[in-house]
Amino acid sequence: MTSAELGCLETGDLRVSGELICKICQDLYNSGWVTGTGGGITIRSGDAIVIAPSGVQKERMQLEHLFVMSLKTREYLHKPLQALKPSQCTPLFLAAYTCRDAYACIHTHSQEAILLSQIFPDSDYFSASGFEVLQHIPRGSKKNGFYSVTETVRIPFINNTAHESDLHDSLKAAILAYPEACAVIVRDHGIYCWGDTWQDTKMNTEAVEYLFQAYLRSRKIKV
Amino acid sequence: MTSAELGCLETGDLRVSGELICKICQDLYNSGWVTGTGGGITIRSGDAIVIAPSGVQKERMQLEHLFVMSLKTREYLHKPLQALKPSQCTPLFLAAYTCRDAYACIHTHSQEAILLSQIFPDSDYFSASGFEVLQHIPRGSKKNGFYSVTETVRIPFINNTAHESDLHDSLKAAILAYPEACAVIVRDHGIYCWGDTWQDTKMNTEAVEYLFQAYLRSRKIKV
Amino acid sequence: MTSAELGCLETGDLRVSGELICKICQDLYNSGWVTGTGGGITIRSGDAIVIAPSGVQKERMQLEHLFVMSLKTREYLHKPLQALKPSQCTPLFLAAYTCRDAYACIHTHSQEAILLSQIFPDSDYFSASGFEVLQHIPRGSKKNGFYSVTETVRIPFINNTAHESDLHDSLKAAILAYPEACAVIVRDHGIYCWGDTWQDTKMNTEAVEYLFQAYLRSRKIKV
Amino acid sequence: MTSAELGCLETGDLRVSGELICKICQDLYNSGWVTGTGGGITIRSGDAIVIAPSGVQKERMQLEHLFVMSLKTREYLHKPLQALKPSQCTPLFLAAYTCRDAYACIHTHSQEAILLSQIFPDSDYFSASGFEVLQHIPRGSKKNGFYSVTETVRIPFINNTAHESDLHDSLKAAILAYPEACAVIVRDHGIYCWGDTWQDTKMNTEAVEYLFQAYLRSRKIKV
Repeated sequence: MTSAELGCLETGDLRVSGELICKICQDLYNSGWVTGTGGGITIRSGDAIVIAPSGVQKERMQLEHLFVMSLKTREYLHKPLQALKPSQCTPLFLAAYTCRDAYACIHTHSQEAILLSQIFPDSDYFSASGFEVLQHIPRGSKKNGFYSVTETVRIPFINNTAHESDLHDSLKAAILAYPEACAVIVRDHGIYCWGDTWQDTKMNTEAVEYLFQAYLRSRKIKV
Repeated sequence: MTSAELGCLETGDLRVSGELICKICQDLYNSGWVTGTGGGITIRSGDAIVIAPSGVQKERMQLEHLFVMSLKTREYLHKPLQALKPSQCTPLFLAAYTCRDAYACIHTHSQEAILLSQIFPDSDYFSASGFEVLQHIPRGSKKNGFYSVTETVRIPFINNTAHESDLHDSLKAAILAYPEACAVIVRDHGIYCWGDTWQDTKMNTEAVEYLFQAYLRSRKIKV
Repeated sequence: MTSAELGCLETGDLRVSGELICKICQDLYNSGWVTGTGGGITIRSGDAIVIAPSGVQKERMQLEHLFVMSLKTREYLHKPLQALKPSQCTPLFLAAYTCRDAYACIHTHSQEAILLSQIFPDSDYFSASGFEVLQHIPRGSKKNGFYSVTETVRIPFINNTAHESDLHDSLKAAILAYPEACAVIVRDHGIYCWGDTWQDTKMNTEAVEYLFQAYLRSRKIKV
Repeated sequence: MTSAELGCLETGDLRVSGELICKICQDLYNSGWVTGTGGGITIRSGDAIVIAPSGVQKERMQLEHLFVMSLKTREYLHKPLQALKPSQCTPLFLAAYTCRDAYACIHTHSQEAILLSQIFPDSDYFSASGFEVLQHIPRGSKKNGFYSVTETVRIPFINNTAHESDLHDSLKAAILAYPEACAVIVRDHGIYCWGDTWQDTKMNTEAVEYLFQAYLRSRKIKV
């Protein structure tokens, strides 16, 4: 891999972000959240955002597959040499970056998100209370602190669309309408989750997905 | 390992295909789809098809275990030095190669395929709609595009037989009768899934299996 | 990593304990018990106890993240250079060390603990009998021997609190009230489990969690 | 590790068997069948049988932990330097070796075995038919061929006892009474499974456990 091939991903913070993306893609694959090229991930470094492409198996993601875009100009600072498509999630990731000043965003295809959509077909949001994991879920950003175990967290639902990019407006609306949410559930599809850093983003994603799992398993016992 | 031992698997595209087979066998094992030597896989490179043998533990598959066959002549271009049996799936893989111009085929023993067989004992096909993952399932081949989330995908069932090779005729009939399917479910047994490339084949397999899982989990909630 | 950076974790028994903590954190993450920075772990070496910090992803835990405290003076013998928070579990770990002469303690966020809390909302303890795994669960310490398969093991519940450190008094009370228990269930939260060595602690944790899983799965069949 | 420390495990077939045991212990741990030091494994090489000890975490098993016994004299040909206990399973493994001329035996603590015990509290055996995986289950030994998918496989239950070694007589009786079984279920405990080679033993174990899982999952749909 020569410098020309990796461009601005060759060294420095962008390379670190790129390598993290490849490693986290493997983690997400092992969690069953991004099988069959589902899902997506982006990490930001200042104005530059590194984004995993569409159509590449997450567990085989490499530095040379990644895109880099300027958050300000929306122009690509780097494209892979190989003819790959930018992630269909890009407009949605931009919504998290601009509306929330996030520094990373993860999109999962978790089946728990599908199940919650079907259990609550008419709800605007999923809500839960009483689980310890709430103390690991920030009020939108960790700058606002975390939920306490007796409070109620609300995570908005938005409807799925035929094309992922068509989700942009409803996702942005949900982000603005639920300032204390760090994630949005796309019905029958998965979640978008963001955070103040890449670490926060991964932790928030795991905490939200854990809440979904614990909620679904608890509900089986109560019903 | 000398050149003589690996034959045409020693270098070039066939070696790449062979190494991929070994790696994907490990992935499939970790997914629980090929435990106990169940299942199978083949990747094509031009006229040559590389095939994992019968009776070898998938998670311990090595280059020296693989067979290579000519698609045109059906003769073995390479056999392992060790006395191994060719995969019983070979005639079925050939059906996918010849009827669909596929470049790889994966056979899983997924328990979800068994459960669907039992839920729909009299159906000719499994069908589903409304799941995002449909957008990752091709209409037989990606040349024909992918399903949209509001369309209905149909995946045919065929009956299981006492010998795997006896499945050939019904598998071929199902492939021809369902040109918009990229997989066939063998009742109480597993699936055969193919694609335009090895990457597509792995992605299609994961997408179809994900659909089965999401469908089964959703059904529990609705019933 | 220079000696200054790792301090007393640089060599000897403390380094061994530190490396074990990092490895076991990975194991616990793979078990789904500490996702999203949930849970915690500590290992003791004489008077020194090594403790994983708060807020670091368990699957990325490194030596340089760890704290070392004196059991006698409760003073930190080593803090990470990086500004990390000590584990909120520290007072709880100290309860296990002082009340039971334990040499390690693991705190999981297992969903099975949550489910048992909800099945038995008014019980003081969870109890089970008849499972082989009882023979792997010590009567508080292995010095007192293990349960036989026909006996009944009791594991106390304590209520969850808004701050983890507020659990200290009830945890200590439960440890003293149930001298034949090697673990305590924090309702809607997870478990604390200890042992005579780090090996015993990991084995006890796995045995107790296995019992929870087997109990919950058996109950579904019987109900 | 000097030759003295490893003794007859230092080189040759016994070293190969020992290394396989360590690797397979890791596989079994990942399958959830031997957590918390549960379960056991042995591989035979001529008259010598290599046996994993009691009380060592399976995922951390090393060559220096293993015992070697003569099948003929029942004397230990090698003991680990470290003071470890021989496996409590040893008499049971010997039953498989002598009654069936097996070359390996695996003991799992699978929860599926527990669930089947509870579903069929009064049955002498578990039986199943119609699953493809039957074609991967030998009639006691592969010399007798494999089941066909329309036949019925029977796997005997034996009652659990307070001490594992007390299982010997009932296990031996079940082995002799069911010559077409390659495994025995110990109620509320797990299975013992053997085979003509170590490969067969691992494949048989996975096939039998797969059958249990598929059976239990199918039953939920039908009930």
